Amino acid sequence: MRIGILTGGGDCPGLNAAIRAVVKRGTAQHGCSIVGFQNGWQGVIDGDAKPLTRDDVSGILVEGGTMLGTARCHPHKVPGGLEAVRDTVHNEKLDGLICIGGDGTLKAAGKVSDAVGVPVIGIPKTIDNDVVGTDSAIGFDTAVTVATEAIDRLHSTAESHNRVMVVELMGRHSGWIAVTAGIAGGADIILAPEEPFDIDQIAKRIKHRHRYKNFSIVAVAEGAIPAEGTSWDGNATIDDKGNPIAGSIGHEVTKALEARTGFPARLTVLGYVQRGGIPTAADRLLGTRFGVAAIDAIVAGESHKFTAINGEEVVLKDFSVMSGKTKWVPEGLLEAAREL
Amino acid sequence: MRIGILTGGGDCPGLNAAIRAVVKRGTAQHGCSIVGFQNGWQGVIDGDAKPLTRDDVSGILVEGGTMLGTARCHPHKVPGGLEAVRDTVHNEKLDGLICIGGDGTLKAAGKVSDAVGVPVIGIPKTIDNDVVGTDSAIGFDTAVTVATEAIDRLHSTAESHNRVMVVELMGRHSGWIAVTAGIAGGADIILAPEEPFDIDQIAKRIKHRHRYKNFSIVAVAEGAIPAEGTSWDGNATIDDKGNPIAGSIGHEVTKALEARTGFPARLTVLGYVQRGGIPTAADRLLGTRFGVAAIDAIVAGESHKFTAINGEEVVLKDFSVMSGKTKWVPEGLLEAAREL
Amino acid sequence: MRIGILTGGGDCPGLNAAIRAVVKRGTAQHGCSIVGFQNGWQGVIDGDAKPLTRDDVSGILVEGGTMLGTARCHPHKVPGGLEAVRDTVHNEKLDGLICIGGDGTLKAAGKVSDAVGVPVIGIPKTIDNDVVGTDSAIGFDTAVTVATEAIDRLHSTAESHNRVMVVELMGRHSGWIAVTAGIAGGADIILAPEEPFDIDQIAKRIKHRHRYKNFSIVAVAEGAIPAEGTSWDGNATIDDKGNPIAGSIGHEVTKALEARTGFPARLTVLGYVQRGGIPTAADRLLGTRFGVAAIDAIVAGESHKFTAINGEEVVLKDFSVMSGKTKWVPEGLLEAAREL
Amino acid sequence: MRIGILTGGGDCPGLNAAIRAVVKRGTAQHGCSIVGFQNGWQGVIDGDAKPLTRDDVSGILVEGGTMLGTARCHPHKVPGGLEAVRDTVHNEKLDGLICIGGDGTLKAAGKVSDAVGVPVIGIPKTIDNDVVGTDSAIGFDTAVTVATEAIDRLHSTAESHNRVMVVELMGRHSGWIAVTAGIAGGADIILAPEEPFDIDQIAKRIKHRHRYKNFSIVAVAEGAIPAEGTSWDGNATIDDKGNPIAGSIGHEVTKALEARTGFPARLTVLGYVQRGGIPTAADRLLGTRFGVAAIDAIVAGESHKFTAINGEEVVLKDFSVMSGKTKWVPEGLLEAAREL
Repeated sequence: MRIGILTGGGDCPGLNAAIRAVVKRGTAQHGCSIVGFQNGWQGVIDGDAKPLTRDDVSGILVEGGTMLGTARCHPHKVPGGLEAVRDTVHNEKLDGLICIGGDGTLKAAGKVSDAVGVPVIGIPKTIDNDVVGTDSAIGFDTAVTVATEAIDRLHSTAESHNRVMVVELMGRHSGWIAVTAGIAGGADIILAPEEPFDIDQIAKRIKHRHRYKNFSIVAVAEGAIPAEGTSWDGNATIDDKGNPIAGSIGHEVTKALEARTGFPARLTVLGYVQRGGIPTAADRLLGTRFGVAAIDAIVAGESHKFTAINGEEVVLKDFSVMSGKTKWVPEGLLEAAREL
Repeated sequence: MRIGILTGGGDCPGLNAAIRAVVKRGTAQHGCSIVGFQNGWQGVIDGDAKPLTRDDVSGILVEGGTMLGTARCHPHKVPGGLEAVRDTVHNEKLDGLICIGGDGTLKAAGKVSDAVGVPVIGIPKTIDNDVVGTDSAIGFDTAVTVATEAIDRLHSTAESHNRVMVVELMGRHSGWIAVTAGIAGGADIILAPEEPFDIDQIAKRIKHRHRYKNFSIVAVAEGAIPAEGTSWDGNATIDDKGNPIAGSIGHEVTKALEARTGFPARLTVLGYVQRGGIPTAADRLLGTRFGVAAIDAIVAGESHKFTAINGEEVVLKDFSVMSGKTKWVPEGLLEAAREL
Repeated sequence: MRIGILTGGGDCPGLNAAIRAVVKRGTAQHGCSIVGFQNGWQGVIDGDAKPLTRDDVSGILVEGGTMLGTARCHPHKVPGGLEAVRDTVHNEKLDGLICIGGDGTLKAAGKVSDAVGVPVIGIPKTIDNDVVGTDSAIGFDTAVTVATEAIDRLHSTAESHNRVMVVELMGRHSGWIAVTAGIAGGADIILAPEEPFDIDQIAKRIKHRHRYKNFSIVAVAEGAIPAEGTSWDGNATIDDKGNPIAGSIGHEVTKALEARTGFPARLTVLGYVQRGGIPTAADRLLGTRFGVAAIDAIVAGESHKFTAINGEEVVLKDFSVMSGKTKWVPEGLLEAAREL
Repeated sequence: MRIGILTGGGDCPGLNAAIRAVVKRGTAQHGCSIVGFQNGWQGVIDGDAKPLTRDDVSGILVEGGTMLGTARCHPHKVPGGLEAVRDTVHNEKLDGLICIGGDGTLKAAGKVSDAVGVPVIGIPKTIDNDVVGTDSAIGFDTAVTVATEAIDRLHSTAESHNRVMVVELMGRHSGWIAVTAGIAGGADIILAPEEPFDIDQIAKRIKHRHRYKNFSIVAVAEGAIPAEGTSWDGNATIDDKGNPIAGSIGHEVTKALEARTGFPARLTVLGYVQRGGIPTAADRLLGTRFGVAAIDAIVAGESHKFTAINGEEVVLKDFSVMSGKTKWVPEGLLEAAREL
């Protein structure tokens, strides 16, 4: 069998582990030829294919990013896109495609498969951890680890200077990184999209806390939003499409807390540091297990399914389980965050 | 309510996160008084109790080890032990006990509860990850992270010198650390107790590999054992009780591989580095969630149960689920380890 | 002898190592009593003294920040400040003071000593590394390490997305962190105050580079400034006193590069993450050696001197060597930064 | 000009930074062609040369080991070795050679240059830091960082279990790693070759310490040796040539301390973990600066010199400064180690 592989959407640590596992297991165990496409679906449209051997994937396990590059491209939205994909599948004699990506990439995979007739298996990745149907996706553990280390470092300077330290973390639609790293890092206040905040209430809690402690750490998800009906002097942080403007909510929260508490407040915007670099052991393991499961599945004739981790087991789930949905931080974790 | 808390068995990173969560949530949410016992069950026998406040647990989230100390002590095996525990429970007016520990500590908890009548809730911790009923236990993620970083570092020197690098990892009864870190670190050979090895076969694979690569990494669990009926010139590495002698299997494997392959082989024994130091974000989160669940459970009148993580949820399970059993590395993971 | 100790100015990793060394060596070797003052000179003014024993400094070697707290306070600028210091020195029967701080704290030390007659020895600390007379100061190595790790992580996401990644690093007056971490992290462009930049020139170099590479990393010191006479559409980033406004130069450079190159540009502001957390081995060693040298010096009757590292040796230098001066990044390092 | 480059002796982190700097600066600034030889002097003997371009060294800054491989080979000790080198120099039209290595590699460089007439410049690397004439050599900072992190992790488990934790660190001839990491990690006892130990004295100090603390950390250099005339029941740990047998001294010290103190003692042998993996920022900077200085020197017509860091400056020193000598840990550092 000849199997194609691509990575789409934003990159993150652990993608290379999945690519490596597909190539190693596909060639050694199943006798497949594996063909890599550059820059996500764009590479399939362009017919930009390259055979991948064990040598090609040697040493990439520890590397962040993706050796295949990535792009945000959906064949069904590009004029002639589906036809071009069909040509490539035909020319390369592909028996299946493994697509590593987020919701968008995997949704495209389903549509391509329907239109072109090639089987597709998806592998979920997103540092935001908002894919429904799997406990975790590739990249999330590394993002949380990086964010937690940053919060650790903020602690010592906060303590010495009686300050409010605000750290803005990734997460436009869900607050997984902020909540998880916030709990792990011992943040005092955690603002997530799942729970719109009342800035006056937050300021009050900080003032109360500073009676017996001389600092506070506030973890803010990019997508955190003020609750309706509350006082909030932040500038517009939502763009035309209703998305929060990246980088601004932390800034506004910092200003607002300094004004309302009287304590000096300082902002750190971790930004892209959260989605790059060496993957954690957990992300390498997850990527490897997903890669093994994906190649096994496509060889077994499966399609329209994605790999998922449920407890200790890697299972296959139908695309419909995740498509168009967002996995929110559950109430139990939000409550733990509120308390601690 | 007055709730006691103790840590037993070997220490590991993440214990303090659990203690902190019990104290913070117990006092703030449930209005409990929390009493800490030093050195595991020994402290309960001795009546060595100390009230724990929010201040006492401030800053311990990031610290390895346990602020309560630990000891391997089982009250039902100590003459007068159960009576002493009964006296302490009475004197301290305890309404329940939270016991953080491995199989031994939690088994003791069940027996103590039966004899003394005090409700007990367990929190599982072990870097070996061999507790049945929970996907993971406190300390495992950190141990794997440390072991994986070590394997990463061995890679570069192995590559430059055409060597067989052997790294001995913890795990006397199960091979979780060796298999998980071995996969995450890209080890070429992984030896775990679950799968007795044939040293000649291993040597053959290494010689084959060195035809196209000039190094190999071999991850060996402490409890790895040669398969019956195979050639093996290792000295006795099993003590009177059938336990492998710590520190020796890696040494013997190193010698045997050097002799059989002709390549220079070098040994690293990571040892206690795997069970100390700053917990990973995942272990802090797990410890915190377990602590929250344990105090909630005991306040709700539960007993003879332990906290477990199953997928995304923390649940309670009966002591009988785990007692006296060992969670082995499943075949799926072993196969992934064999292939990659 | 009774010796006081304080930390002033901004905090940084490694201060506790110095405090610990002073206490341990002072008590064990010299039989001194060591007295700690809280919050820098403010604590001396307030007479807020606390004896420090070996137990008090146990375990602080690995902790960021300062166990003594810190404040920006200069006794000679506070009404009645010098008199209050004199009273404290008299009441506490101090034979000397060890002051750990930057230029400001040490300048104050000299003036206090002149006015009050108590011997003072300084220990230089600053993540900015701009103290004249010493190869390095406490905190610099850790700041560079943190900044380099961040640049490492930015690399992988930059590569996968054809982007200009801008990272703003600390350094208002000198560019040590940006230049050092920039070289160590393989940044493509480094902007430091020592070398005012021409934004058009930078944009041109990036466009040239993107012909064969698909990303660029730009490290910007907080104090980087456009060269006179060059095109620059950045908003005012200099405040009334001529200081650059913290947090803004990176933002302006990002906007300007995106506009001029047409490539998407993204900003990371590392902020306080650079001055907190666990000190590196090098900073712990430097803090320890400075602490040992400082207590030895004051016991030997020295005053008006600071500890300095010159090559492998720790030496004493007169306050006049560093006072009011800034150690710039030398031309040799700037050239290395330009080339690589 | 055509310049050859090779790495010899044991590998360590930071070598690739030096290679990259030579290639980037050599080609861009000086218009040189750079030719890499595989496996140290062996590659020169074999004529195994490969042109190195900027592309070849892209991304290697962060990688441990050496892209050129390494071997312990001295042309003047190989029959026909010098003639083979002469042929290669002639065939490749080399105008100079840059040799990165320890004492052995650089000594060979001098002899080769004398015999063959080609200019040579050396770059010192050794995790042992025992090269005379330079404050530091490539690889030392990373080794100390790894060793210090290990000691950090041992602390928490030692504290919880009342143990003597022994960690064996690299350093056969000098104790730089043990002393530096021991101080930085807060080890209680440090055993280095520079100061032969009396095991009874050590045991006594540990017993004294355990009256008020319940653990000890002992850092042992591979080359640590018992003082003459002292009681010592260690087995022979010195081989025929008078070198200590790797891996054994830590084992013997552990046994001896357990026997003499009655406390349980546990051993960690860090081994090759210390010489592999990602280089620290300091080692990348040092490698880069040495690479720049080396190519500048050889282009300027220098020979028989090595790059050295003295304080803040990189300088050139004659081979005779370091040849055949060992830089010992100075008394000042040993005293700091004794005290703290």
